[in-house]
Amino acid sequence: MFRQILDKVRENVPLVHNITNYVTVNDVANVLLACGASPIMSDEPDDVEDITSICAALNINIGTLNQQSIAAMFKAGRRANALQHVLVLDPVGAGASALRTNTALQLMEELRFTVIRGNISEIKTLMLGSGSTKGVDADIADAVTEENLPEVIAALQHFAAQKQCIVAVTGAIDLVADAGRCYVIRNGRAEMGKITGTGCQLSALIAAFVAANPQQALEASAAAVCVMGLAGEIAWHNMAATDGNSTYRNRIIDAIYQMQGAALDEGARYEIR
Amino acid sequence: MFRQILDKVRENVPLVHNITNYVTVNDVANVLLACGASPIMSDEPDDVEDITSICAALNINIGTLNQQSIAAMFKAGRRANALQHVLVLDPVGAGASALRTNTALQLMEELRFTVIRGNISEIKTLMLGSGSTKGVDADIADAVTEENLPEVIAALQHFAAQKQCIVAVTGAIDLVADAGRCYVIRNGRAEMGKITGTGCQLSALIAAFVAANPQQALEASAAAVCVMGLAGEIAWHNMAATDGNSTYRNRIIDAIYQMQGAALDEGARYEIR
Amino acid sequence: MFRQILDKVRENVPLVHNITNYVTVNDVANVLLACGASPIMSDEPDDVEDITSICAALNINIGTLNQQSIAAMFKAGRRANALQHVLVLDPVGAGASALRTNTALQLMEELRFTVIRGNISEIKTLMLGSGSTKGVDADIADAVTEENLPEVIAALQHFAAQKQCIVAVTGAIDLVADAGRCYVIRNGRAEMGKITGTGCQLSALIAAFVAANPQQALEASAAAVCVMGLAGEIAWHNMAATDGNSTYRNRIIDAIYQMQGAALDEGARYEIR
Repeated sequence: MFRQILDKVRENVPLVHNITNYVTVNDVANVLLACGASPIMSDEPDDVEDITSICAALNINIGTLNQQSIAAMFKAGRRANALQHVLVLDPVGAGASALRTNTALQLMEELRFTVIRGNISEIKTLMLGSGSTKGVDADIADAVTEENLPEVIAALQHFAAQKQCIVAVTGAIDLVADAGRCYVIRNGRAEMGKITGTGCQLSALIAAFVAANPQQALEASAAAVCVMGLAGEIAWHNMAATDGNSTYRNRIIDAIYQMQGAALDEGARYEIR
Repeated sequence: MFRQILDKVRENVPLVHNITNYVTVNDVANVLLACGASPIMSDEPDDVEDITSICAALNINIGTLNQQSIAAMFKAGRRANALQHVLVLDPVGAGASALRTNTALQLMEELRFTVIRGNISEIKTLMLGSGSTKGVDADIADAVTEENLPEVIAALQHFAAQKQCIVAVTGAIDLVADAGRCYVIRNGRAEMGKITGTGCQLSALIAAFVAANPQQALEASAAAVCVMGLAGEIAWHNMAATDGNSTYRNRIIDAIYQMQGAALDEGARYEIR
Repeated sequence: MFRQILDKVRENVPLVHNITNYVTVNDVANVLLACGASPIMSDEPDDVEDITSICAALNINIGTLNQQSIAAMFKAGRRANALQHVLVLDPVGAGASALRTNTALQLMEELRFTVIRGNISEIKTLMLGSGSTKGVDADIADAVTEENLPEVIAALQHFAAQKQCIVAVTGAIDLVADAGRCYVIRNGRAEMGKITGTGCQLSALIAAFVAANPQQALEASAAAVCVMGLAGEIAWHNMAATDGNSTYRNRIIDAIYQMQGAALDEGARYEIR
């Protein structure tokens, strides 16, 4: 089924507006092109309403937020909501600073997000309204394990119901939940954590996948998570002995560019709870 | 003849000031180094006049423009004009938002550009004073084809005469025109559109090539377009089975780094009309 | 001995806050991950104090400074000093514009830096309080040679004593000096100058290495310089015939990711004067 979702992205070529951090923005643009979508970036408040109007989705990532880009996030987000576009939030570093936590919470307050994707520490911060995050990585104490899985899923579904959105938590085990169902996904490799930006890339992919499959938002989000994780597996398989994290980054995007629907259906490892 | 133009870039090592978007800026810096030039980036209004003064060319790219960088574009552009430096405009997304369209038009009003390079939708927007662009990609309806080629060339040459500059339109067929002549270039591959930033890179190359060959600005611009397109062909030839758009990006810059004058003269495919 | 220093970085996983330019920021993040550290980027004045508080080191790079990021540098730097964090300055382009020169000098005036790293033209500018730099590259007239080495070392040590910090000058010969000793390092390759950002990456590495080895700040700085240079040698050895500067960039970061302590001790080429 994920095959059809990926095919739709390539047929529809959704244009995705990204207000995103300057650390991983180039990878975000290339991964959108790799999956068959089209990227545009704009974070000037006087520019974003026009830009988001011609797009199918808006991906808001607070990774290197500043007062100007925060204003742009709200303006673009309101326009995206008014136009019923797909709206994704990536709360990078929520819990690591008051500005990040508060900005993420206020964005959730004022805007209706289709999907919120983060690591477990960031999502916990949003669920609790406060938190502490080890930089932009999840705190080990927060890790999702086989043991606490039922409990974490219940909390995510409660949060998804409350916010009327899809919540995606990525880590060793990935969870994609709405109020009714939760995909538990076991694709990916630990080495992906040694590359900057796999999370940012995934949030952009989710925006594109949902934009091209608006009637199946949960499935499309889960498919994007599987695509990213599977690409991490394929890319690792393609690594030469002297390759490291920089080449791994390229190979992951390459694997998404090359990914066929059949390979996705074969390689996706998930259950629905 | 293009061989001599490339050699001059490597002999002169022109320093190119770039006010450019944060999406593709790293590739712009590396492609300038690859061709033999030297990059510097600055978009702070209080910094740009000093920086542009020590350079040979200024490359203005409005890809992620903001109010601060717009102010910097005008300040740097006036200084570059006063010093008779090469000045290039890349009107990324002109037609996609009022701010982008108006900024590009005002820059053209206030400054004398040596070269303006964009896709056909962006250039049409500048010629008409308004337009609509599909994000940062050209609208298919605007495509340059063998059929409308004479008509498009005439329009470009009229525009070039009016603005007293060189106009470069890149796409499936590339056109580089001044009031009197037009290079019609058929290098490149469609897959280059699956990488972010090949246009941004080309604008920077043009700035470097013209800076090192000021007496042959049209030829130098055409040579830069051929270098980029030919690099796309060579890089594609070097692709392994599992490579995708991220690696293709690296291989294109690598091909420019490795490009010899003889290979350029042999591989350049163009006619002059 | 450098082996233990590298091992400590991998054991401690120091979190490094970077206020850095948007040209090379992605490479800076990936090189920090490659060496075993963890990166976070933030340049919003309202965000940086919180962010730097959870880190072990702050790396200030003025490469694409603007009035907002300058304010952030001072705020974050004061907090880092108050918390006795490692504080590194990379004065990119000092000497190329009044704003860059003055900002670097004022940062040195107001803050206590643990390490200042630049090319010889930038460091000369800081030593003299003014200067002229060829863009972001060193002026050839300033080059460190075997002939002027004793004289340059004496000047650096005088400066290091005055500022009570470590000074690292990188180029064909690398020098890492405090008031009492100077490492003279001969790793690296000239081709590293054809990649944007090897200097920016090195400054970030120094921040991570000193943060993980606070009692051996001079040795840790020298180790970081050797790691970068040796990675340049290993990466060059791994280059295929068609590879150029873009792939070389990836291979250098890959080599750092793969670097073992034994290989570092074997490949490090330095003397202590």
